[in-house]
Amino acid sequence: MTDTIAAIATPYGSGGIGVIRISGPKAFDIAAVLFSTTKHWPKGCKKLESHKVYHGYVFDRKNISVIDEVLLIPMKAPSSYTAEDVVEIQAHAGTIVLRTILDEILSCGARLSEPGEFTKRAFLNQRIDLTQAEAVADIINAKSVNALKFAASQNLGTLKSSIQELRQKLIQFLSLLEVNIDFPDDVDPFEPSQKEMELVDDVLKTCREFIRQHEDACFLKDGIRIAICGAPNVGKSSLMNRLLAQDRSIVTAIPGTTRDPIEEGLNIEGIPFVIADTAGIHQTDDLVEIIGIEKAKDHIIASDIVLFMKEPDTVFSDREFEKMVPLENQAGKKVIFVINKIDLDKGNLPSLSEKYRHIPTIEISALLNKGINKLKQKIVTISIGHLDMEKSSVIPNLRHKKALEQTVASLEAVKTGLANKLEEEILAIDVKSSIDFLGTITGETASLDILDNIFSNFCIGK
Amino acid sequence: MTDTIAAIATPYGSGGIGVIRISGPKAFDIAAVLFSTTKHWPKGCKKLESHKVYHGYVFDRKNISVIDEVLLIPMKAPSSYTAEDVVEIQAHAGTIVLRTILDEILSCGARLSEPGEFTKRAFLNQRIDLTQAEAVADIINAKSVNALKFAASQNLGTLKSSIQELRQKLIQFLSLLEVNIDFPDDVDPFEPSQKEMELVDDVLKTCREFIRQHEDACFLKDGIRIAICGAPNVGKSSLMNRLLAQDRSIVTAIPGTTRDPIEEGLNIEGIPFVIADTAGIHQTDDLVEIIGIEKAKDHIIASDIVLFMKEPDTVFSDREFEKMVPLENQAGKKVIFVINKIDLDKGNLPSLSEKYRHIPTIEISALLNKGINKLKQKIVTISIGHLDMEKSSVIPNLRHKKALEQTVASLEAVKTGLANKLEEEILAIDVKSSIDFLGTITGETASLDILDNIFSNFCIGK
Repeated sequence: MTDTIAAIATPYGSGGIGVIRISGPKAFDIAAVLFSTTKHWPKGCKKLESHKVYHGYVFDRKNISVIDEVLLIPMKAPSSYTAEDVVEIQAHAGTIVLRTILDEILSCGARLSEPGEFTKRAFLNQRIDLTQAEAVADIINAKSVNALKFAASQNLGTLKSSIQELRQKLIQFLSLLEVNIDFPDDVDPFEPSQKEMELVDDVLKTCREFIRQHEDACFLKDGIRIAICGAPNVGKSSLMNRLLAQDRSIVTAIPGTTRDPIEEGLNIEGIPFVIADTAGIHQTDDLVEIIGIEKAKDHIIASDIVLFMKEPDTVFSDREFEKMVPLENQAGKKVIFVINKIDLDKGNLPSLSEKYRHIPTIEISALLNKGINKLKQKIVTISIGHLDMEKSSVIPNLRHKKALEQTVASLEAVKTGLANKLEEEILAIDVKSSIDFLGTITGETASLDILDNIFSNFCIGK
Repeated sequence: MTDTIAAIATPYGSGGIGVIRISGPKAFDIAAVLFSTTKHWPKGCKKLESHKVYHGYVFDRKNISVIDEVLLIPMKAPSSYTAEDVVEIQAHAGTIVLRTILDEILSCGARLSEPGEFTKRAFLNQRIDLTQAEAVADIINAKSVNALKFAASQNLGTLKSSIQELRQKLIQFLSLLEVNIDFPDDVDPFEPSQKEMELVDDVLKTCREFIRQHEDACFLKDGIRIAICGAPNVGKSSLMNRLLAQDRSIVTAIPGTTRDPIEEGLNIEGIPFVIADTAGIHQTDDLVEIIGIEKAKDHIIASDIVLFMKEPDTVFSDREFEKMVPLENQAGKKVIFVINKIDLDKGNLPSLSEKYRHIPTIEISALLNKGINKLKQKIVTISIGHLDMEKSSVIPNLRHKKALEQTVASLEAVKTGLANKLEEEILAIDVKSSIDFLGTITGETASLDILDNIFSNFCIGK
């Protein structure tokens, strides 16, 4: 890994500042070639001091013309993001200007970085462990203040320390076993004592606690999924726009206006939701609408919360409801019965059948913006079961959870082995497995496949 | 203007790096309160040296918890973007993380900057003139390498120098007139000589050259507009996708699939185009489609280039063509006649009528990706009239053009006045006007309205 990589590190788009990051042995040389502290080239800036900020200009070498006025920030290894020589160029954020500067850098011998390669280098150079690398992605993608808090904590190394502590305990246990295996005559024969049992139980308990935390709080990363469903023209898109407080969906008086399901993030009281406006479900021959209705059904099945909409002068029928929210899919799903258009004649409001009397009902007028706050409150209230967030500060991700589950399985085998007084060799195999599984979390024993998989999900420039 | 402003300066979205900029007298104090070089707070970083880079952490003061790991860059006045005290915080680019840090900064006594306020302060503190401020926006929005080159040149002060030079000449002339007005007895009476005539002609010529340059090259900023038009299902969306080399438009076999006109930027050989896929124009009762067809017509009228599409076994009729591209709208518009679906039986290809024999014809198959490069070449060729870009390095924007036109009008009055030997007082009024009009370009005499208008078009953080 002796090559030099470069990429645009700020989000794509227009803005005041865009940053290009260069990392590797050639970073300082490339900067010295393209950058000048004066408008005249090549005056250069031969000696770049680490962690100083230089004002100047980046040049197009072919046309000897200024590409942009920039700030240049050189950072010498190992005091940088990647622990390699790094140069950051702060230019204006525009697609063409950043791309033009990047092209110049690449023509000087850097190569475009792969997704996540900067963070991968930070990991491979042991500046951070794998949980911290993953926390970088979680910080960037945090959809709520709470999710950010957990990610920032993980980035500081909280999870890393916890896992390393567990691992250390098991390594000591393994050493004890191995001494007995390697020098059976020099030490007392291994006798599983209360102490070893307690150690395994202790580690098991912590692993299980982490797994439970994951299940409680994984929604923090992706948001609680809400689907709005109902017959065509009942006002689903209008409600969506009201909840988002913007015109996201096209609203017309024409039934079947919404075809592609529209998904948007929504934050109510710091809780992240993903809300989907779906096509009205009804019989139709329109091919595009039929596809839309299929997608709507998928959304309803995948959602945590369903807003089932009706309007005055219609009837709530169990059959219609169960067509939208199939019986086999109702378990664990929260439903709110939303009666829209209460601005119209309220003569006959639909009411829930005996069977569904437990479902809360909210009356709204999306048109007049009435009842929307009440609905938001209800959405928060029924979500609150998920929300005991103060009790933990580390939420392992799905990959961690799986590794923890594998650790638990290995430790269960160790426990059984201890109870049955199995031989040290056999116990050692399972203890070693559990150590390895914990090691995949921090990256100490992670395979190249795992690393590639993690970093390929990063965007370029990270 | 003694308050401190702050904003997210990088584009909205997710990425490796996001930058928050603080500018004003409190910038350093705020940084000292929120930032620490260790994970423990409040250890602080009391003395921040200018133009050094600090690695550390930004804190949520209420919860005493780390929001993110950051780089902090303090820059003392006047060596900063705004020529005030500036602190930049380089965090991870995520909506919530940047917003959370910004909220902390605002709670420390900064206020959210208005659009363009950082650049406006740079202008008001006389670090840059108005043409340079506008060039910042042009750099960010540059849609091609050539547009970027012009903007970068303007940012370096090329236009500023030219305008200042013209203005200086007129100011000298005005001084001469004013001496005569103020001290008529002390100097020789003013006699308009060949020299004054030449001076005015000289300035006039340069102003006119700038105006012409604007007309030649204003497309560089916004792109040459291409509209794809034709009957429903002739393959407009497929061609759009081929030209963009991506699936932007939904393609189905169902006529009328495209409703909202879809616009995308496209760069061919460094020339920026904006290409619009429009609804197929035909008789319909579908309300959404009717709106789409109206919009399609607007797009065709506003476009510089029209791709008129037909398929085999149809006939080119003057009437149909003129319905799409009205006669009164044909002047100056370039049309390419595109025959799609040549993969089908080619028995009867439509051909142009006598009247429209000058229109170039290109045969393609959007399905098989045939003829697309030939079409792109033709688009470039017929655009080339616009493209004598080497001859000028300064492209005034529309505001500059208007100010130049006003300057020209005033100078024409001066010329007439000189020819008619009008009194110095009257000549002086028009000379002064032309000086003021030139001054609005660089900002020396720009009114607050003009400034507000310019900077309000910037985004926040710029």
